[in-house]
Amino acid sequence: MDYVLYYWPGIPGRGEFVRLVLEAGQAEYRDIGLEPDGVEQIETFLNGEASLQTPFAAPFLLAEGQVISHVANILRFLGPKLGLTSEDSVSRDWEHSLQLTIADFVTEIHDTHHPLGPSLYFEEQKTESMRRTATFLQERLPLFLGYFEQILTTNPASHHHLVNDRLTCVDISLFQVIEGLRHAFPRTMETLDGTLPGINALHASVMAFPPLKAYMNSSRRQPFNENGLFRHYPILDQP
Amino acid sequence: MDYVLYYWPGIPGRGEFVRLVLEAGQAEYRDIGLEPDGVEQIETFLNGEASLQTPFAAPFLLAEGQVISHVANILRFLGPKLGLTSEDSVSRDWEHSLQLTIADFVTEIHDTHHPLGPSLYFEEQKTESMRRTATFLQERLPLFLGYFEQILTTNPASHHHLVNDRLTCVDISLFQVIEGLRHAFPRTMETLDGTLPGINALHASVMAFPPLKAYMNSSRRQPFNENGLFRHYPILDQP
Repeated sequence: MDYVLYYWPGIPGRGEFVRLVLEAGQAEYRDIGLEPDGVEQIETFLNGEASLQTPFAAPFLLAEGQVISHVANILRFLGPKLGLTSEDSVSRDWEHSLQLTIADFVTEIHDTHHPLGPSLYFEEQKTESMRRTATFLQERLPLFLGYFEQILTTNPASHHHLVNDRLTCVDISLFQVIEGLRHAFPRTMETLDGTLPGINALHASVMAFPPLKAYMNSSRRQPFNENGLFRHYPILDQP
Repeated sequence: MDYVLYYWPGIPGRGEFVRLVLEAGQAEYRDIGLEPDGVEQIETFLNGEASLQTPFAAPFLLAEGQVISHVANILRFLGPKLGLTSEDSVSRDWEHSLQLTIADFVTEIHDTHHPLGPSLYFEEQKTESMRRTATFLQERLPLFLGYFEQILTTNPASHHHLVNDRLTCVDISLFQVIEGLRHAFPRTMETLDGTLPGINALHASVMAFPPLKAYMNSSRRQPFNENGLFRHYPILDQP
């Protein structure tokens, strides 16, 4: 097996950004979290018992004896191996800039339901979540989406790829963010829909990519739920 | 001039992680934010008027016609050019994993005074900051510091370098985080001091590196203040 993905079972979460790239690249991989002793195996690495390259958190990838953590770092590693990055280093650095902007965006999306941090449950920070989400939906969400829309519109090579005229990891990640936002904030995303022609074209194009289409229709694609990154709390999705 | 750094004037902030690496590598660079029309020049890039590789936010670096954003991405680009990274790709990926953990740590440190997001002032979210900071200081801070302490302790090549036995960008970044934490939370950092022999040794070793020692004593080194990332609000630094 070429690649081993370590991520918590039960949620698509941040692991799904890696899973989508492995699936798009038709890689052979094991998904440890879904195996019977998966959680123990993840913890062995996080405890520092399996490698000196101890990751701080999941997801992490084991490949060629190397442990690589953080979605953006994993995708930068996988991109060239799976044909999902540009050929030249300038474009790859640009893809990585965009990928890290997506990482920041995802953190802000997560923090709408966890403004007081990861140590407390949503139910313990509901009032604060309502305040944080209100400014997020009004200011930050349109700012991030408008940014990616502008990148797509001004890309001289393609209007449905972020970089050059080929499918790269960062397109797939933006697709997943849109999937997650439509789950979490359906009302708000509906009101923004008409302003996002480039993002909608990218979303449709990634969705139609044959290996991903097959994956979406398989049981390996996990549904969103209210334990993960993208959570649908109707009380937060308000004007 | 080889490198041009774009970052807001008046705060060390995230730009300081880049500045420290440029200084450690004795690079020739311009610091645009400190020039008379610096803010306008930064905004020209953020508005998409100067390059199609539009960054979402500062800091970003202009080098060889390329625009590179995000501290971790900038340092991954500068490391090989300035001799501040390992020779082999496995170690470089490991450095990048650690660098991205530092990015997450820095975001959590920032969010202690901005739990409701970047759209509101600290004064508008003071009560929430007190709740968020309490769990941060009790749980997250020891978790992150304990993680880096463990990486230092188990590095077979050196106990005051995170990767191999040489100074790399990620050592310099961890140094700056410790500087910032000692400014922001002096009381709490004092209580943790005895548990951090590896981190203290790394801090001392980075501080003594001649180009950085010279920089620290120059007027180019900006002091922390209450507009930046690492803010000292005594009300937050409580047991």
